[in-house]
Amino acid sequence: MSDPVSLLQELIRCPSVTPHDAGAQDILKARLQKIGFEIFDLPFGEGEHRILNFFARLGSGHPHFCFAGHTDVVPAGKNNWDSDPFSAELKDGVIYGRGACDMKGGIAAFISAVENFLEGHSEFSGSLSFLITGDEEGPGINGTVKVLEWMQKHNHIPDFCLVGEPTSAQVLGDIIKIGRRGSLNAVIEVEGTQGHVAYPHLADNPIHKLMTILTSLTQPVLDNGNEWFQPSSVQVTSIDVGNVVTNLIPGTATARINIRFNNLHSGTALKGWIATQCHRVAEYCKIDVAISGEAFLTEPGEEVRALCEAIHQVNQVKPRLDTGGGTSDARFISQYCAVAEFGLVGQTMHKVNEAVSILDLNQLTTIYQNVIEALFKE
Amino acid sequence: MSDPVSLLQELIRCPSVTPHDAGAQDILKARLQKIGFEIFDLPFGEGEHRILNFFARLGSGHPHFCFAGHTDVVPAGKNNWDSDPFSAELKDGVIYGRGACDMKGGIAAFISAVENFLEGHSEFSGSLSFLITGDEEGPGINGTVKVLEWMQKHNHIPDFCLVGEPTSAQVLGDIIKIGRRGSLNAVIEVEGTQGHVAYPHLADNPIHKLMTILTSLTQPVLDNGNEWFQPSSVQVTSIDVGNVVTNLIPGTATARINIRFNNLHSGTALKGWIATQCHRVAEYCKIDVAISGEAFLTEPGEEVRALCEAIHQVNQVKPRLDTGGGTSDARFISQYCAVAEFGLVGQTMHKVNEAVSILDLNQLTTIYQNVIEALFKE
Repeated sequence: MSDPVSLLQELIRCPSVTPHDAGAQDILKARLQKIGFEIFDLPFGEGEHRILNFFARLGSGHPHFCFAGHTDVVPAGKNNWDSDPFSAELKDGVIYGRGACDMKGGIAAFISAVENFLEGHSEFSGSLSFLITGDEEGPGINGTVKVLEWMQKHNHIPDFCLVGEPTSAQVLGDIIKIGRRGSLNAVIEVEGTQGHVAYPHLADNPIHKLMTILTSLTQPVLDNGNEWFQPSSVQVTSIDVGNVVTNLIPGTATARINIRFNNLHSGTALKGWIATQCHRVAEYCKIDVAISGEAFLTEPGEEVRALCEAIHQVNQVKPRLDTGGGTSDARFISQYCAVAEFGLVGQTMHKVNEAVSILDLNQLTTIYQNVIEALFKE
Repeated sequence: MSDPVSLLQELIRCPSVTPHDAGAQDILKARLQKIGFEIFDLPFGEGEHRILNFFARLGSGHPHFCFAGHTDVVPAGKNNWDSDPFSAELKDGVIYGRGACDMKGGIAAFISAVENFLEGHSEFSGSLSFLITGDEEGPGINGTVKVLEWMQKHNHIPDFCLVGEPTSAQVLGDIIKIGRRGSLNAVIEVEGTQGHVAYPHLADNPIHKLMTILTSLTQPVLDNGNEWFQPSSVQVTSIDVGNVVTNLIPGTATARINIRFNNLHSGTALKGWIATQCHRVAEYCKIDVAISGEAFLTEPGEEVRALCEAIHQVNQVKPRLDTGGGTSDARFISQYCAVAEFGLVGQTMHKVNEAVSILDLNQLTTIYQNVIEALFKE
């Protein structure tokens, strides 16, 4: 039996704070090479922006099942840890260290799962692969996005990709993410004509126009949600004028809005909608829209069903299929293939004394192994 | 013939910047005493807030016609005047100095007018009076308001009061003010519940509530104005949240509004209306309302008609009866009796090189005299 604990400890002991790798990927590549994976080194970026990534594949047929993960971690922070964040101390059945749950633990579990699987199946029809990046916690430019472009060019796009992020909330297995909402930020600045408040007919109050615009953006129900998503939501996060003179109509007024949208919308369409609402009301209007990510959904298929069964078998937990929360590299992968996210309990991620219990790590390894077994069943 | 020019020069030479009097009122009292007026000194306030005021009356019957004015002036300012602002230089037919038009010129003209009138009418039925304050340009607490209370207590409320403010805009006589709109400022702070923008159902966005409130305050037509007033107007002058975090729903949002309202409304009623609109929408809401002045109107009667005729006779100008612009002590007087405002051209008031032409000063004296003649015609 392969042991994920010692592998995780080895990985934590590499202080791979983005953009550094500190030897973490070499450890993985050596393990994968040993069990027959072909390794493709895919560094991107120059100088201090240079990021190590690799793709590894075993077999060439279908189904092609890929595990995606990142070896980079966020800094340990200035607060005092109970032990060195890069020493991987094991105490009372718990491993402590930066990256323990986000997500060196997930990577260690998946590699152990594959090693265990191959012990019993030296031959299998289909292929297994790893998409490993060192740029998930950083700007995300020289990592998954570029590896995916390379994979497409070289015919390595999988049928399904499992991202090993720590999606579990309270207990291992309680949440699987099968999609995420999109997010869009807009800054709307309306220009009017400044004037004395006693002579409103000689001025043009930009606040009144801005209110009409914001009402037209927040009043309509964008949608009622669907089976997998909650309704989309438009929130005004700030309005700022900064006029303290009581008898003055100001010249400009600015609002910030955020839209969290489900897969019934696209960021581009919403951007157009915002512009239309603005220009219906205000001739002079500056609109600055940034789409942080599009909504995506992988309708649950056999892989997610296998994952649910494996979790229940190991853990007696019935996972909830979820599309809430923030963003991850899954938003990039979703543009190429079906993707889901499942991993450890994330409660300590990015915090002091980040940790994972050996019990959870071993159970996750078994869950991953059972999924692989199910997908490559003869 | 009494000469308003030398009297005005004497008054300007008293640097009576609020709260100082610098001898200005003594000059007036001596002139008025000489022609038979009874003087009532009415200082109010203590220490550095002490303000000199007086009431003077000649005769005890009706009609009782009162002239209201202030001897205090705004500071000369730091900008360079062409001559000492308190030297009352006479150059090319123009008198320069702080208070020349606002409103020592008006006072000098009215005193000269009364002196001229009394030369021809040692006896007249009715009474003439002066309400002179030293606190019009200052906080306005120890001036006209308290003199009016005293006048009421001592049975000196006139039938009509003319305030000698420089109401003329382009040429002497073009504008008589017969009322003013009221003004109200409100600061509305809505309290919500801060939260992550991805979970709007767990937060309570105060901006959305504030927008609903502001829409309910600005959308309705308060009125369509009337014969003498333009429509009332509600203007949002600022909205301030100050949240630059894109994924945060803020906890509070604040707006400032100003209402300029005509005599179809009262400040108190509007204050209640604002509170109702706020509490219909937001449970937690801080509303701070300051009524700067109520709207008032003196429907033009024989005094205003006499004034129009006098102006046209002297100046061939047909005055416009107006209710626009800012506020003056007329808003206090209007609570006791009919009031109108008429005086010099105000273009240089509060400015460097404040000035009045001798022509205008003499014409204003004649206009005032003609009005007095008309009102006390046997």
